[in-house]
Amino acid sequence: MEIRLDKFREECGVFGVFGHPEAANLTYLGLYALQHRGQESAGIASTDGSRVYRHGEMGLVNDIFTPDIITRLPGTVAIGHNRYSTAGQSLPENIQPLAVTYSRGGLAVAHNGNLVNAGAIRSELEEAGAIFQSSSDTENIIHLLARSKATRFVDRVVEALYQIRGAYSLLILTERRIIAVRDPRGFRPLSLGRLGNAWVFTSETCALDLIEAEFVRDLEPGEMIMVDEDGLQSFFPFPKMKASPCIFEYIYFARPDSILGGQSVYDCRKRLGRRLAREAPVDADVIVPVPDSGVPAAIGFAQEMKLPLELGLIRNHYIGRTFIEPSQSIRHFGVKLKLNACTEVMRGKRVVLIDDSIVRGTTSRKIVKMVRDAGAAQVHMRISSPPTTNPCYYGIDTPTHRELIASDHTVEEIRKYITADSLGYMSMEGMKQALAWEGDLDPASLCDACFSGDYPVALPKEDASQMSLWSARVSHV
Amino acid sequence: MEIRLDKFREECGVFGVFGHPEAANLTYLGLYALQHRGQESAGIASTDGSRVYRHGEMGLVNDIFTPDIITRLPGTVAIGHNRYSTAGQSLPENIQPLAVTYSRGGLAVAHNGNLVNAGAIRSELEEAGAIFQSSSDTENIIHLLARSKATRFVDRVVEALYQIRGAYSLLILTERRIIAVRDPRGFRPLSLGRLGNAWVFTSETCALDLIEAEFVRDLEPGEMIMVDEDGLQSFFPFPKMKASPCIFEYIYFARPDSILGGQSVYDCRKRLGRRLAREAPVDADVIVPVPDSGVPAAIGFAQEMKLPLELGLIRNHYIGRTFIEPSQSIRHFGVKLKLNACTEVMRGKRVVLIDDSIVRGTTSRKIVKMVRDAGAAQVHMRISSPPTTNPCYYGIDTPTHRELIASDHTVEEIRKYITADSLGYMSMEGMKQALAWEGDLDPASLCDACFSGDYPVALPKEDASQMSLWSARVSHV
Amino acid sequence: MEIRLDKFREECGVFGVFGHPEAANLTYLGLYALQHRGQESAGIASTDGSRVYRHGEMGLVNDIFTPDIITRLPGTVAIGHNRYSTAGQSLPENIQPLAVTYSRGGLAVAHNGNLVNAGAIRSELEEAGAIFQSSSDTENIIHLLARSKATRFVDRVVEALYQIRGAYSLLILTERRIIAVRDPRGFRPLSLGRLGNAWVFTSETCALDLIEAEFVRDLEPGEMIMVDEDGLQSFFPFPKMKASPCIFEYIYFARPDSILGGQSVYDCRKRLGRRLAREAPVDADVIVPVPDSGVPAAIGFAQEMKLPLELGLIRNHYIGRTFIEPSQSIRHFGVKLKLNACTEVMRGKRVVLIDDSIVRGTTSRKIVKMVRDAGAAQVHMRISSPPTTNPCYYGIDTPTHRELIASDHTVEEIRKYITADSLGYMSMEGMKQALAWEGDLDPASLCDACFSGDYPVALPKEDASQMSLWSARVSHV
Amino acid sequence: MEIRLDKFREECGVFGVFGHPEAANLTYLGLYALQHRGQESAGIASTDGSRVYRHGEMGLVNDIFTPDIITRLPGTVAIGHNRYSTAGQSLPENIQPLAVTYSRGGLAVAHNGNLVNAGAIRSELEEAGAIFQSSSDTENIIHLLARSKATRFVDRVVEALYQIRGAYSLLILTERRIIAVRDPRGFRPLSLGRLGNAWVFTSETCALDLIEAEFVRDLEPGEMIMVDEDGLQSFFPFPKMKASPCIFEYIYFARPDSILGGQSVYDCRKRLGRRLAREAPVDADVIVPVPDSGVPAAIGFAQEMKLPLELGLIRNHYIGRTFIEPSQSIRHFGVKLKLNACTEVMRGKRVVLIDDSIVRGTTSRKIVKMVRDAGAAQVHMRISSPPTTNPCYYGIDTPTHRELIASDHTVEEIRKYITADSLGYMSMEGMKQALAWEGDLDPASLCDACFSGDYPVALPKEDASQMSLWSARVSHV
Repeated sequence: MEIRLDKFREECGVFGVFGHPEAANLTYLGLYALQHRGQESAGIASTDGSRVYRHGEMGLVNDIFTPDIITRLPGTVAIGHNRYSTAGQSLPENIQPLAVTYSRGGLAVAHNGNLVNAGAIRSELEEAGAIFQSSSDTENIIHLLARSKATRFVDRVVEALYQIRGAYSLLILTERRIIAVRDPRGFRPLSLGRLGNAWVFTSETCALDLIEAEFVRDLEPGEMIMVDEDGLQSFFPFPKMKASPCIFEYIYFARPDSILGGQSVYDCRKRLGRRLAREAPVDADVIVPVPDSGVPAAIGFAQEMKLPLELGLIRNHYIGRTFIEPSQSIRHFGVKLKLNACTEVMRGKRVVLIDDSIVRGTTSRKIVKMVRDAGAAQVHMRISSPPTTNPCYYGIDTPTHRELIASDHTVEEIRKYITADSLGYMSMEGMKQALAWEGDLDPASLCDACFSGDYPVALPKEDASQMSLWSARVSHV
Repeated sequence: MEIRLDKFREECGVFGVFGHPEAANLTYLGLYALQHRGQESAGIASTDGSRVYRHGEMGLVNDIFTPDIITRLPGTVAIGHNRYSTAGQSLPENIQPLAVTYSRGGLAVAHNGNLVNAGAIRSELEEAGAIFQSSSDTENIIHLLARSKATRFVDRVVEALYQIRGAYSLLILTERRIIAVRDPRGFRPLSLGRLGNAWVFTSETCALDLIEAEFVRDLEPGEMIMVDEDGLQSFFPFPKMKASPCIFEYIYFARPDSILGGQSVYDCRKRLGRRLAREAPVDADVIVPVPDSGVPAAIGFAQEMKLPLELGLIRNHYIGRTFIEPSQSIRHFGVKLKLNACTEVMRGKRVVLIDDSIVRGTTSRKIVKMVRDAGAAQVHMRISSPPTTNPCYYGIDTPTHRELIASDHTVEEIRKYITADSLGYMSMEGMKQALAWEGDLDPASLCDACFSGDYPVALPKEDASQMSLWSARVSHV
Repeated sequence: MEIRLDKFREECGVFGVFGHPEAANLTYLGLYALQHRGQESAGIASTDGSRVYRHGEMGLVNDIFTPDIITRLPGTVAIGHNRYSTAGQSLPENIQPLAVTYSRGGLAVAHNGNLVNAGAIRSELEEAGAIFQSSSDTENIIHLLARSKATRFVDRVVEALYQIRGAYSLLILTERRIIAVRDPRGFRPLSLGRLGNAWVFTSETCALDLIEAEFVRDLEPGEMIMVDEDGLQSFFPFPKMKASPCIFEYIYFARPDSILGGQSVYDCRKRLGRRLAREAPVDADVIVPVPDSGVPAAIGFAQEMKLPLELGLIRNHYIGRTFIEPSQSIRHFGVKLKLNACTEVMRGKRVVLIDDSIVRGTTSRKIVKMVRDAGAAQVHMRISSPPTTNPCYYGIDTPTHRELIASDHTVEEIRKYITADSLGYMSMEGMKQALAWEGDLDPASLCDACFSGDYPVALPKEDASQMSLWSARVSHV
Repeated sequence: MEIRLDKFREECGVFGVFGHPEAANLTYLGLYALQHRGQESAGIASTDGSRVYRHGEMGLVNDIFTPDIITRLPGTVAIGHNRYSTAGQSLPENIQPLAVTYSRGGLAVAHNGNLVNAGAIRSELEEAGAIFQSSSDTENIIHLLARSKATRFVDRVVEALYQIRGAYSLLILTERRIIAVRDPRGFRPLSLGRLGNAWVFTSETCALDLIEAEFVRDLEPGEMIMVDEDGLQSFFPFPKMKASPCIFEYIYFARPDSILGGQSVYDCRKRLGRRLAREAPVDADVIVPVPDSGVPAAIGFAQEMKLPLELGLIRNHYIGRTFIEPSQSIRHFGVKLKLNACTEVMRGKRVVLIDDSIVRGTTSRKIVKMVRDAGAAQVHMRISSPPTTNPCYYGIDTPTHRELIASDHTVEEIRKYITADSLGYMSMEGMKQALAWEGDLDPASLCDACFSGDYPVALPKEDASQMSLWSARVSHV
């Protein structure tokens, strides 16, 4: 579940600590535990009360933060950020946390999510004379905050956030405080923890486990928490709206050992697998997950079907920083670089492959072929979510409509494309029922736009057309 | 099974191609598929018929071999090598293949294994005036080969190998040929494959799968194969001895998707798990493997026990090149940096953890604690091999007797140390029976010295005492 | 004259090309020729008409700009910048050209000089909501430009520049043009050249020589030149003021092969040496320059005195990127790492050392000792400028009053400190007369504040006190 | 005189310290002072009495030896080496000191010079089974030393050196001693110094000045000095031969502040200049040296002619690690990247350029053109040595016969080629007389083979033909 098959180009992770002598070191560990949420770059900003220190680089957390660099991030307060990996583009100026000087001193911001009106706001800010260093949505938030006329810092933050729409789980650091905010819809997760007297913020609870911090609670959608030397304060500055946390965190993004909205992600995925078995059973000999994200669903599927589970697709985890594709005279290797089939498991068997989703279909097609080449008598594909028909505008880097195979193909057409003997998706209702649980949040409220096209926060027309214009006019090469 | 928990410091992998226009590129891919056999350094030597080209670096295959470097390794013949990771020591002069100039031209050697009389040979060679660049056993072989008075190259190789004892799967490259040799005991694996008209040598068959080469057969113990422009010739230059391939390849080292001695490694491990269930059953609720090497055994165990399997220990695969241990004011994190327990899977359950072996016991102790902290009602440990009581002298970097917990503790003492509710090992006989198969090799013949202390090739007394003197007197810093 | 003895921490150099297919490559060559004006960092921004591309790094021009990076700076328009070296501080965010996106597109600015009201402007901008990435004066100019409400780009530039006071030779690049401006006092140099149909801007003419461009003329103080596809236009947007170009460019900073204000720098220095010989003659055997900046003055001095010149102090030019000072158990080497005395030249001689200035006196003291240790019978020091009594606020990184030995010591006190047998400075009047020439600029008009304390543009009180507050509150570590 | 115009690809420098707690640090400083003798790579080997530590890299001394690396070179004994720069070839395995393990322990060797029978020896060694890591002559010496059957270390060294012919100034380090040897002809310099109780060895005395060590004396040709804990011993193990130190050290290679054979190099060059003025006077206005090596000769020439000296060719010293040649659409810049002419000095003048030698003639041709373009009325070239007609086989990387313009062109033909108005060389006799001095060494005895073709040690025929075969058959890429 950590080193992905890169169907999606991931989203981001944020982590912060207030009030611990090893703040930067703990933040480094937190980012390490959240590495699955973004592998392109990572950064940490800390403060000793008089200045803000910041370091960010392209690469993996472990490779970036040497003891020497941790030492140069002093103080008891720190925030950090992991960024997702984009294909081939390297933009060091977009590494987060962004850190700047404004009228009141230093400021650093770490943002998980995507704003839907970023284009319009950027145009307005530029017209008013703002200069932009990055092509990131997040710089808008900083400009709005710096331009606020409010006196209290919290009021500046609220004033800035009132102007933006979309998805944001934000950590804001100044010389004196951390402010953590989750947008009114609660698209992206954000949790609060405690380590001794220190407060901890994290995208997922698995990072609390690593540093042996106690889980306190999730931030509620629309909640803003400020921690400073006077302690922790909670605000609800936004009008109450219908929350819509991202359903895909449960299906694919979050680590299985995280607790999200009070639910074990591992358990959710197993329930999805069980339900899938009831919805799309198949007469077969062996159940094989597509690693790593398909594993819990496959376990649930196998248990429900009372069929043997085998981990017959073996991952190569040593991907390294770069990968050279062999030159043209060698065949293109694609998914073979990451997976290999155990012939013994497949030979002569009716194999059911369990995956969480199909995006473009190209990877599934290669996996089906690989399993068949390994001698499988039949290859059936079962997907633990409904067809992915629509792109996400709230922080997940999905392909466009055109590239999503399910956006304009029937299930039968997809089955033919991936050359499976049968293909079964989960129903929308089945998925919701499988995810149903006790507590405040109703699964019916989850954002399922990628499956349904029902977007809780609409993308402004002008922004849709401007999507490709958001990028900065300056390339730092 | 690939990113290990570093109980053992691994061994090495070798790969070679004769007669393909993309020889270096294929070798790079082969090494990538064999990365699990050694992550400290990697190198490739190639030849275009007039010179030998060589590049090696510390690090992972993917990070070392850029397209630019592959370009600088021309020719249709290449060999490569992955080296194991030692704790903290960085010796670039030991990176293989070693490549030198001798009287007949260029020469490169890639070696998997360990010589037991390296110290004595090195002393003799030095007395005769040889100068050594590295502290590697392999340099002895090169000196012996260069000093041979034989005319034919094969005779030089045979003359050199007659003087050494121990474990070696060797690839030797000159401007005109590759010679592949497996020592008379066949300690380490070595297989032959075919890709179109090209011949391929590899430590494990999983590398053949990646480059879509056909598996031809394993080299037999004591076999030497030479490929040159006249084709392939096989020799058996050594007196017939009782073969003793390493049993630990089946239990832990080899990739589960490899075929070793005609047997699927995945299947062997599952059979071990099944047998273990019969030998050491336990009344429990859930079976959880210690990832990744314990997975197939756990599947077999669970199937035999008809108990549910859960992958409740989640790996963090993003280890990166370096890892900073947090400073002293933070608790030591140890195994938590690599594993986290899914609370949901463990809470209130009687958990059986399945692992392939226990070396020092420290990791097992931490895992048991982690599972108990996650709420398990009981934690039982089952090991799919007998107690590891003796160090390996044939190419696996095991700890010394002193550090092997099973060398001087009873099973009950180990159980207490790792704080498990029960602990069960596989019996020696059970292991052999589980591994039994049809074919030429009798499982009874496998080298089981690490469990039995019964060493097929004895370590000379003088060498045992000289172990610490083998290292070069020169440190390249 | 290029690798300095680091009495001053230098200033900056700018270079630009409009209308050449190899714009970035020529800019790289121009920066290379201007390397003596700043060795800490260098950057180039280019444009292809649709975007602005930018690359900057710490280090020397030659080490930064590889062919690969030049390739990533496409287009026919480019500007570049060399920055001075500060002691031990490494601030990558201050590397110029600064490049940002604003309402009209991309924008890059390269600035040589120092603003005296930067603190006040920065405070105002921050109060109005501006966020700052760097601690550089130059970012103020960009904010002012971006906030201008003017429609035409030239009007925006003029509006911005009206608000700042101090020294600036500026190059501004957008997707469509370069604007070059020299401040109304003309503190820092800026020349115009022509290479075929391309226009070239450079801090010094030596860069024109390298690329074989033709020198057209210096920009006049207060002149603004815009080049775009419609050709070159000149503006004089500022009220006419008394010009005051920096006199120290002639004495020390500029390369001797540059033509500055119509004068050969080499020749100016020789004339200073001749005049010095008349003002402060000495009965001696040999004239020895302190290399490299003292060489032309020593030639003039020796010619006037009819005494033999010897280059008896030998430079070590291989300074490299870093220099380790030997640890404490070895004596401190200081100036010996850069200079060594030829014993043969000095032994038994009455030696006159010619230097351009004395700043702290510590280097002179070591050189006098070195010459005396080499056997000189007498050591006389002659300085080709008056005592340096006051710091510069217009772009030269001089020490503070406290550190300038001449600010509170008499010539006799300085002589004693440096242990010379005699010490002679140039008079203020002598310096001016030696520099006198035909043409528009009167030497009397040159800024001689470092000698006289007579500052043409006063430093606001509030800024003087805020000097240490200008730095950003964010440190990028 | 330090950053050369690269007419010759330099030779090497060696430095060593015995008996100082900062041995590696002092060696680093010594190599820094000897950087002009080789800029391709540098290395240091040290010993603490039990092991030999070694570090070497491509690049400049200052960039290679960080405090961290110096720390990893412990002990009170160290030797170091600078290697010359070859055009485009990067062979890290040739970096010296070479360090190996042999029968008696660790061994490191630093070598300045060239062996003339290296090919034959290498063949013999390879036939006897030696394996070679490098393509360097020096590895031969190590093999011979390791193969010696002598008991005492000095006897091994002598036995090895008896087998080689050619030029060598050698430093050999073991765990217990340094042995310094100068070949019987004394081709390359080697001096002994003293710093407190420590002994120092250096190629040139300028390195003693830097570390403030006292010059003791030059090693005599054929002398071997061993220093160990029992003190210093001198041996003369070779038959007495006619010494023939390299004359080119005086003309070009050595630093002007060094004392060589009891003579000031600076003074020798000035005397050459004076003599040249008498041999080849010219009616002119100004004398301009080609920097840096032509400066002292030009001073002598100008003094003798009573004509004004001007340093009218300005060097750019910031060459950096790499230099990109501009692409084809820009003119080739060649020597302009390193030199620029001061127009003011040249315009309308009859200019005499003073250089130490002409090798291929291409650089001289460009300089003459540059000076003429700067407005010189006449350009005369005077060379402070005779025509360079023959390649050097004793450690200086001169071009082959074919490339030496003087090998097959008359002076008049060369004058035409370089487009000078007149060209004057020094006579052989004049050069010898100018260098004549008191002391043991007669200038008549200096090796002048590059001018006369009179080689003191003949190159074996078989080696001449094998020159291109010496290189290793293995390329480390």
